[in-house]
Amino acid sequence: MTPYRTIAQQSASYPVFISRGAIDGVGGIVSSAAGARKRPFVITSANLLEPFGRPVAASFDPPARIVLIEEGERRKTLETAAAAVTALLEAGAQRDSVAVVVGGGMIGDTAGFAASIFLRGIDLVHVPTTLLAQVDSSIGGKVAVNHPAGKNLVGSFHAPRAVVADIDALATLPERELLSGLFEALKSGIIGDVALFELTEQRRAAILERLPEVLEEVVRRSVDVKGEIVSADEREGDRRRLLNYGHTIGHGIEAATHYEGMTHGEAVGWGMIAANAIAVRRGMLPDQVARRIDDSIAAFRPTPPPSLDRDAVLRAMAHDKKFSGGRRVMILPRAIGLCEVVDDIESAELEYGIDAVTAR
Amino acid sequence: MTPYRTIAQQSASYPVFISRGAIDGVGGIVSSAAGARKRPFVITSANLLEPFGRPVAASFDPPARIVLIEEGERRKTLETAAAAVTALLEAGAQRDSVAVVVGGGMIGDTAGFAASIFLRGIDLVHVPTTLLAQVDSSIGGKVAVNHPAGKNLVGSFHAPRAVVADIDALATLPERELLSGLFEALKSGIIGDVALFELTEQRRAAILERLPEVLEEVVRRSVDVKGEIVSADEREGDRRRLLNYGHTIGHGIEAATHYEGMTHGEAVGWGMIAANAIAVRRGMLPDQVARRIDDSIAAFRPTPPPSLDRDAVLRAMAHDKKFSGGRRVMILPRAIGLCEVVDDIESAELEYGIDAVTAR
Repeated sequence: MTPYRTIAQQSASYPVFISRGAIDGVGGIVSSAAGARKRPFVITSANLLEPFGRPVAASFDPPARIVLIEEGERRKTLETAAAAVTALLEAGAQRDSVAVVVGGGMIGDTAGFAASIFLRGIDLVHVPTTLLAQVDSSIGGKVAVNHPAGKNLVGSFHAPRAVVADIDALATLPERELLSGLFEALKSGIIGDVALFELTEQRRAAILERLPEVLEEVVRRSVDVKGEIVSADEREGDRRRLLNYGHTIGHGIEAATHYEGMTHGEAVGWGMIAANAIAVRRGMLPDQVARRIDDSIAAFRPTPPPSLDRDAVLRAMAHDKKFSGGRRVMILPRAIGLCEVVDDIESAELEYGIDAVTAR
Repeated sequence: MTPYRTIAQQSASYPVFISRGAIDGVGGIVSSAAGARKRPFVITSANLLEPFGRPVAASFDPPARIVLIEEGERRKTLETAAAAVTALLEAGAQRDSVAVVVGGGMIGDTAGFAASIFLRGIDLVHVPTTLLAQVDSSIGGKVAVNHPAGKNLVGSFHAPRAVVADIDALATLPERELLSGLFEALKSGIIGDVALFELTEQRRAAILERLPEVLEEVVRRSVDVKGEIVSADEREGDRRRLLNYGHTIGHGIEAATHYEGMTHGEAVGWGMIAANAIAVRRGMLPDQVARRIDDSIAAFRPTPPPSLDRDAVLRAMAHDKKFSGGRRVMILPRAIGLCEVVDDIESAELEYGIDAVTAR
C-alpha cells in the first residue's frame, strides 16, 4: 500500500495511510514501518474487537496478540493506561514490541500513552476507527489521559511509526460520533483550508450519507491541515496553538458538564461559535463570516449545552494548559482559512463568549 | 557557580554541578538553566524537607513552593507519581513551571517521571541528595517507577535542565545508603575508569569517613563515566548497556526478595560478583582480577542475600527489560575498566552465577 502522505515532525517522520479497506493492510504496513522482527500487540476495546480488532490482528502473520482496555471518556485515566501496561506485560510484550492501537480518540490517546511509558516507550501504530481520530487525534504524536482536574493533563509526546485510517470503518460509526469528527474537520477548514470548509458546506448531505469518496476527501484534507501544522511545530509554539481553535471555551463547557451529554466535537463546535463571537466583538472577524461559520456548525446539529452557570465554565477553564503563564490565550478567526493566536483575552471577553453559547 | 561538566545527550544538553554547599546555589542555577520566568516547584519528601527541601526552596527569590511525595522503594509506583501530578496541579504548577526534585534515587525517578508526564512534560532539575542519586540515577535522563511485575517498567526519557549535586548532603546520609551508592561508583570504575576503581580501593577508609574531597572525586569520576556513556548513546544501544553491569542478576535478587532487606547498590554488588563468576567460567576474566573486584565489593560489606531459591531469582528476571527479543544479555568484565555486552548467555551460566552468590 502507498501512504497518502508522510508527516515529518521534529522527533520522527511517519506515513499516513488513508483508504477504504486499509485495515487489511496493517500487518504489511507495520512490518515495513516498524520492522518485521517486532512483535505486534493489538490494543482495542471489547466493543471494537470483532469489527476492527480481530481483522487488524489477522492481517499479521502469525496473527497479533490482542489486549483489551476499557473505553469511554470517563475511562480515559491513568488507571486505564496502567491496566494497559499490565495487560501488555502479561501478554508478553517487551522492549522490541509494537503497540497497534485500534479505536477512536479515547483508545488512541490512552493506549498510546500506555505505549509511551511502557518500558520507557515502545513503537506505536495508530489505526483510528472514528472520524475524530482519523482527522485529529491520531496525527501529531500527542497522547494523554485525563485528570480529575482537567482533560489531557497527563501525557507524552510519542510520535507513531505509522497511522492507518480505514474509511470503511466510518460506515458503521454511530451518527453522533461521525458528527463529533466533523466538527474537528470543520475546525481544520477554518484554521487552514477554505476548500475543506466549503466541502463541509457543499457536500453536507453526501457527508451525512457517508459517501466514501467524500469522507475520504474530508479525512485527507484534515490530515493535510494538521500534518502541516505539526510538521512546522511539534510542541506548543504558535503554529500548533491554532489547532486549539474552539477548544478553550469548548474544554470549559466539557469540564463544567463533567464530560457528559456532549461529544468532544460538539463542545468544540460550541467553542468555535463562542470564539467567533469574541472575534466579531474585537472587530477581527466580519459578522457575516461568523454567521457563515456558525451556520455550518449548526447545520451539523450539535447537542445544545445545558443552561450552564458562566462561572462554572470559567472555573473549569482555570486548569487549562493553554492558560499558562498568566496570559489568557485563544485562537480567533479573521477569515475562513485564517486564524490567529490572541494572547490578551480579557475576562469580559471570555464571559461574552460563554454567554453567546450558554444563554441560548 | 561553574558547572563541573556538561552532558550532551541527543535530546538535550545540561550542566552538572558538583560541589560542597551547591544546594544554596540551586535558585541561581535554575534561573540561568531553565529561564528566570519559570516558576519553580520543589518536590521532596517529608523526611528531606528540613535538611534539603527548605534550603533549596529558599535559594529562589521568592522562595519556591514545596510539594511533598511519599518516599521509599515500595512507594516508587505509578500511584505516587500520580499523587505528585495532583499535588503539582493543586500547588498551581503550569506548563512553564520547573520541577526541582530534591532527594535520592526513588524521589528523583518518581518525581522526575511525574514531571515528564505532567502536561506532557515540564522542565526538570535534579538535586540528588544521596550518593546513589549523585553518581548514577540523576544522570542520563531516565525516569521510571516500578510495576508489580518488575522494576522501572513504567517510565520515560526526560533529560533534566540541570543536575546539582551537593557533596555536603552526603555527610548525614545513613551508612547503608552511602554504601549503596559506593557499589554503583565501583561499577562505574569497573566499566570505564581504572582510577575510580583504585580510588575506592586505596581511599576506602577516607570514603567511609566521608572525607568530602574524596567523596567529591568519587562523584565526579562516576559522573564522567556515566556522562560519556549516555552522551554517546542516549537510549539502549550497546554503550548504554554497559551501565547494566551487575544489574541483571542484581535485579533478579532484588525482585525475588521483594525489594526488602537489601539496598539497590547491595544487590548490584552481588550482581557484579555473579557476573564475574560467569566471566571467569567463560575464560573472559582472569580469576585473580575477579577476586580483586570481589574483594573490593566485599570490603564495603553488602548485606548477604537470604538463601534464595535459584528458580525464584530466574523467574524474577523473566520480565527484565534487558532480556528482550529472546536473547539473554549480560555485561561481563574482561578487565577493570573494560566490560563487554554478551548476548548469548545460557541458562546454565545464569544458574552458575546465581549459585555463586546465593549459596554462600
